[in-house]
Amino acid sequence: MEKIRIGIVGYGNLGRGIECAAKQSPDTAVVAVYTRRDPASLSVLTEGAQVLPVSALDDGKQDVDVLILCGGSATDLPVQTPRYARLYNVVDSFDNHTRIPEHFDAVNDAALAGGTLATISVGWDPGLFSLNRALATAVLPDGENYTFWGKGVSQGHSDAIRRIPGVRNARQYTIPVESALEAVRSGANPALTTREKHTRECFVVAEEGADRERIRREIVTMPAYFADYDTTVHFISEEELLRDHSGIPHGGFVIRSGKTGWNRENTELLEFRLKLDSNPEFTSSVILAYARATVRLARRGERGCRTILDIPVAETLPMTPEEMRKTLL
Amino acid sequence: MEKIRIGIVGYGNLGRGIECAAKQSPDTAVVAVYTRRDPASLSVLTEGAQVLPVSALDDGKQDVDVLILCGGSATDLPVQTPRYARLYNVVDSFDNHTRIPEHFDAVNDAALAGGTLATISVGWDPGLFSLNRALATAVLPDGENYTFWGKGVSQGHSDAIRRIPGVRNARQYTIPVESALEAVRSGANPALTTREKHTRECFVVAEEGADRERIRREIVTMPAYFADYDTTVHFISEEELLRDHSGIPHGGFVIRSGKTGWNRENTELLEFRLKLDSNPEFTSSVILAYARATVRLARRGERGCRTILDIPVAETLPMTPEEMRKTLL
Repeated sequence: MEKIRIGIVGYGNLGRGIECAAKQSPDTAVVAVYTRRDPASLSVLTEGAQVLPVSALDDGKQDVDVLILCGGSATDLPVQTPRYARLYNVVDSFDNHTRIPEHFDAVNDAALAGGTLATISVGWDPGLFSLNRALATAVLPDGENYTFWGKGVSQGHSDAIRRIPGVRNARQYTIPVESALEAVRSGANPALTTREKHTRECFVVAEEGADRERIRREIVTMPAYFADYDTTVHFISEEELLRDHSGIPHGGFVIRSGKTGWNRENTELLEFRLKLDSNPEFTSSVILAYARATVRLARRGERGCRTILDIPVAETLPMTPEEMRKTLL
Repeated sequence: MEKIRIGIVGYGNLGRGIECAAKQSPDTAVVAVYTRRDPASLSVLTEGAQVLPVSALDDGKQDVDVLILCGGSATDLPVQTPRYARLYNVVDSFDNHTRIPEHFDAVNDAALAGGTLATISVGWDPGLFSLNRALATAVLPDGENYTFWGKGVSQGHSDAIRRIPGVRNARQYTIPVESALEAVRSGANPALTTREKHTRECFVVAEEGADRERIRREIVTMPAYFADYDTTVHFISEEELLRDHSGIPHGGFVIRSGKTGWNRENTELLEFRLKLDSNPEFTSSVILAYARATVRLARRGERGCRTILDIPVAETLPMTPEEMRKTLL
């Protein structure tokens, strides 16, 4: 089988996750990693993969079927995705929900101009969660969607704690409230406040002599990040943090309940759940499956920008349609 | 908005469910019900819908955008779906998993010959469960799929009990074994026997004077249906059966856990769950969403046979792509 040649742009957790996912897949090969760092300083997992400066991409002549863009959504992807979509098929995991429409338009214009195919916002939220929200909405129009996240590490909230004076290190977990989950599962379609849906738990390493009560207060009252939640703060040692909290677990729930029947007499419930040991590795696994689909659809002449909602699941699998119908349908 | 004109072929629980689903949908209208019974004997839910003999379909001139075939998988659909796919766009819920490949081929030939689009095996299993099995397999290649059904009524098993001499009426529930679900959720990928996955619970109304112990023995030892399961039999009165067991609930779980990481060090879990008050109404709701998609794709020139794996979720929703990206992605 001729393998799909993958280029990775940006080599953090997500880039390494793509290498792990490609290793498990019979039809994909990571052929190059493109980095803004000194390529000589980078040692990648995949034997035989080239490590090149990102500038190598600029002439559009790199021998890859698809570029997977592993930069951040704040500043990297809004620039990189349109830029490289003019030259290559690309996939990104742009996850700033409110800015997806403008990102889509920019990438769509670039891909149409370049004659390429781009798939944006792939992962689990946006990504598999979006797919389940859409599917549940299509199937049960008379209903309500609920999304819960966690238990999992929020990098943004952990960073916010680390910026407080006197904090040496921190890890924050977002946790869905079990009673809220149960209320939703009951089919009651409850109106839930932010506070009722999730709690936040923080593990903080304080500098020696720092005022822990002040740190705790600064955390729990922090607007946007913590003030609207019930937040618990635990002070622990750096050793404990490294020993017990160095993983990057995450997950969550998409639940929709809705009514069916001529007089809405019946209640139907859909629930999609993820429980992840490694958020970046799982996200990469989703991205790789949709990179496969992107290459296939591009080879059939599709051009422009797509999201997970636009792509048939059949295209994400390294199987023939006959095999799928026989074993998965 | 010009509505999608739907014809229903066969007027049982599923046909009525399609009417209920169409009522909730802004862009669909049931315009006709086609029946093998005397049309004058049928009173349908939808105001203004025609009731016609199935023979009215034969000239291919009925003014519908799509026919939804609501017959049974054993004898109706293998004949009806290819037959009507030559004349109309069609959707069916053919659910005999082992015969899907041959059904697909027959329908595909007919639809290509007729210049129509057909979508087969839509519902929840096959259907939404298939979609989740496929998606989970694509995302976690190094893993295992598990499907559990229930708690729900199995019509086939209820019928099998009713055929035993001395049985007046019966209702059978398939129930997933909680400890098996937990073992799968733990990520252990256990090997589970039939007996370990599901139990069967039977509510039986016996004829007066019938030997209940003989009936119980005949049930629990019945090959294929019950012998491989732990089966409980309760004898109740006809009143109790009608009062407590007249609903048609169902549901189940698709779970896949798999490994990620360069050395398979992490475990990721996907779980999709349905909990349904009304199996036929929910199945109809899924069918209606994919009937919408079928009409849209047919209008864009697609021809032949499709399954739920081939159709982008975006096509199942009565929304613009912009709305979807803004509200669901």
